[in-house]
Amino acid sequence: MRVLGILGSPRPFGGSSQLLRCALLGAQEEGLETALFSVYGGEIRPCQGCIQDEEPNCKYPCIFEDYGKKLITEIYHAEAIIFATPIYWYGPSGQLKNLIDRLTCLENMVAYGEPSYMEGKVVGIITVGADAGLTLTGGYLLTALNAMGAIIPPWAHAYSRRADHALEDSRAVMDAINVGLLVAGLAKILRGQKGTISYRDDANLRERIRLKILKEKEEFEAQHDQK
Amino acid sequence: MRVLGILGSPRPFGGSSQLLRCALLGAQEEGLETALFSVYGGEIRPCQGCIQDEEPNCKYPCIFEDYGKKLITEIYHAEAIIFATPIYWYGPSGQLKNLIDRLTCLENMVAYGEPSYMEGKVVGIITVGADAGLTLTGGYLLTALNAMGAIIPPWAHAYSRRADHALEDSRAVMDAINVGLLVAGLAKILRGQKGTISYRDDANLRERIRLKILKEKEEFEAQHDQK
Amino acid sequence: MRVLGILGSPRPFGGSSQLLRCALLGAQEEGLETALFSVYGGEIRPCQGCIQDEEPNCKYPCIFEDYGKKLITEIYHAEAIIFATPIYWYGPSGQLKNLIDRLTCLENMVAYGEPSYMEGKVVGIITVGADAGLTLTGGYLLTALNAMGAIIPPWAHAYSRRADHALEDSRAVMDAINVGLLVAGLAKILRGQKGTISYRDDANLRERIRLKILKEKEEFEAQHDQK
Amino acid sequence: MRVLGILGSPRPFGGSSQLLRCALLGAQEEGLETALFSVYGGEIRPCQGCIQDEEPNCKYPCIFEDYGKKLITEIYHAEAIIFATPIYWYGPSGQLKNLIDRLTCLENMVAYGEPSYMEGKVVGIITVGADAGLTLTGGYLLTALNAMGAIIPPWAHAYSRRADHALEDSRAVMDAINVGLLVAGLAKILRGQKGTISYRDDANLRERIRLKILKEKEEFEAQHDQK
Repeated sequence: MRVLGILGSPRPFGGSSQLLRCALLGAQEEGLETALFSVYGGEIRPCQGCIQDEEPNCKYPCIFEDYGKKLITEIYHAEAIIFATPIYWYGPSGQLKNLIDRLTCLENMVAYGEPSYMEGKVVGIITVGADAGLTLTGGYLLTALNAMGAIIPPWAHAYSRRADHALEDSRAVMDAINVGLLVAGLAKILRGQKGTISYRDDANLRERIRLKILKEKEEFEAQHDQK
Repeated sequence: MRVLGILGSPRPFGGSSQLLRCALLGAQEEGLETALFSVYGGEIRPCQGCIQDEEPNCKYPCIFEDYGKKLITEIYHAEAIIFATPIYWYGPSGQLKNLIDRLTCLENMVAYGEPSYMEGKVVGIITVGADAGLTLTGGYLLTALNAMGAIIPPWAHAYSRRADHALEDSRAVMDAINVGLLVAGLAKILRGQKGTISYRDDANLRERIRLKILKEKEEFEAQHDQK
Repeated sequence: MRVLGILGSPRPFGGSSQLLRCALLGAQEEGLETALFSVYGGEIRPCQGCIQDEEPNCKYPCIFEDYGKKLITEIYHAEAIIFATPIYWYGPSGQLKNLIDRLTCLENMVAYGEPSYMEGKVVGIITVGADAGLTLTGGYLLTALNAMGAIIPPWAHAYSRRADHALEDSRAVMDAINVGLLVAGLAKILRGQKGTISYRDDANLRERIRLKILKEKEEFEAQHDQK
Repeated sequence: MRVLGILGSPRPFGGSSQLLRCALLGAQEEGLETALFSVYGGEIRPCQGCIQDEEPNCKYPCIFEDYGKKLITEIYHAEAIIFATPIYWYGPSGQLKNLIDRLTCLENMVAYGEPSYMEGKVVGIITVGADAGLTLTGGYLLTALNAMGAIIPPWAHAYSRRADHALEDSRAVMDAINVGLLVAGLAKILRGQKGTISYRDDANLRERIRLKILKEKEEFEAQHDQK
């Protein structure tokens, strides 16, 4: 089983990336494999709305041959997905929104007599900003993904207002780790394994994961001369 | 295991009630017990925000002795809850919002070292209006309830724009039945039983349930001289 | 011309009240008369949805004889209204929502061949919480009121996360004063008077108003032995 | 004075385009000049969040040299803007969201001691979909634009669920024309001219504009062999 992290930020180690990495380590604590992709890793062409054609032809795989298609394929094969985004005007980044729009090709399989290819996937959300709009964005993403067939564990949205300093936001770090734990725990239960769906307040776990991501961040920045 | 239906409408057999009853019959198909309560069945005093007192004292049970307390107790004891509401200015009815506000006493147990008393409950949503605001309302309720610890099955929000004629809206009836099936199915899985979390498109089931609720509606109206 | 403040909080001098009072002093700076009413000042019966009756009969004045009717009448006579609310589960308080629901009797005059009685009124919003949901709540209220016919000046939503300490939140105090200035400025322009609709960043004005409200708060608390 | 129409759809004459064109003709009725641009007319690179750099450097003009910059310049010079979008997963199209994100360079002038370059512009919204999410999308756009400094006239959001058949939706056509009339009317009032801000229910005007756009649509389709 695989938990996929989709990063909606242009910053490889900004706040939303920091908390997403915490969440993925949380999922690893539950024994699941993880992977992380950024929507800024290549071109994601905007959806052209084939679903509204006179002869609707929106289905998996999407007709566009681009980096977006690669991400859609990764999502298709994952049992769980955690979407992380910075807050851009009270919503997900436009680049992440382009990917969300393109997920229609997974959901619209219902028009071809199949279940939605998003049905039963477990999702979690990370949002990070410097001010407001966190709940609006997180709630929006949960609402849209649930309407594609995704399942939402308890406390599925972790957020911080500390922007690039999100790692210093202890509550947010604990919440993000729980997004990973709970997404993984529910995915396991749904496949007949043991798993838990209770929030885990564990300062040792939090500090262990925080320090690990902090170190990765510092190594990344050293390599890229960002400091 | 019990699935509770909470009706947010002043109309005993209006559209949101019709679809809620469909959803509860869906839950019964999965073998679960159901019950239905209306927020208009008694007084629900508005929350007075004890959680912001200098010495916070918001915990279960709520200090108000009213009908709201009875509903909170029912919610506390249920494994799953389906909230149904008419759309009043793009949101749940104020009376239902008063109940939602009061649920803080269940969630705020976290301030007393306990898990949220909403954690792990499975929720579904029904909204019915004559025009717009359905997704805004349904998404709002899912977002708030998830932040209390609730779990959300796939396709958790069924809606209709047909107001008092919601029963004639075939897609909405099928969706509402699925809210019941999926809420019940997920509740069973979470307790180690067999259950399914796939949308079921079944015209026979839909018509059987539709006709049953239609008959109940007509009997109710005959009794109350509404026709 | 009159700017009405509607307080959605049970606390007479909590955070949303503090900022609402700042906003009303802002409106007074523009030479307008102000008044403040709390939705907790009496009973506001929940809307019973007459608009969905077979023979629709929702119009001004509302059929309920209660404190809600008094507030609706005040709104009817005001040129501008500023709604202030604490954040209760990412939305306005249920008591304020009950009032919003009842405003249908003003808007639904369109069904009787008249303009909406909310058309052309200028509105502003204050929200105060201890955590998240401010934009979701403020944006919701602006969206609903605009759909009744209200006009929205720039920067119409001021908010603070400082709860009962909102007066110490300098940005929020300045923003709230601007809600008052801008609501009043736009109301004046719409009636052919001179007015401005530019944000005013003025530390002297901010401190003068902050201290005035702080003093009123302390006097209120001294009278009520809350300290 | 100029009213700008920004089309968020890949379809030159789809539903959101149809209603946007109705709105622009409404603005012309008020004597204002109009222009229409589609976000699909060129590349709009996703915002890279310069506002979060250690040394913030987000200001007008945006550093990206692309079609997005051209649209931002058009917005900068317009007195009023009407944004139209199809509903993609309960939100604006990702391509339009990319443009919204990039508008930060106009608003963030406040960080350089200037007013927001969006302050005082009048905005209206058109949304068209085949199902739900219209109010969520329209309310989201109004909320974000108001927080940049935009002013919102009454009834600023027109919508239709008729997708490519939006022109057949009489209420939506009348509402869209009113978005144009009201946006233009308020822009005139704000500049000391006469203007009205009352909804105009006028079947003759509606049919005249509807037929004009229908003819343009048919000519466009004849040219492009789409029929």
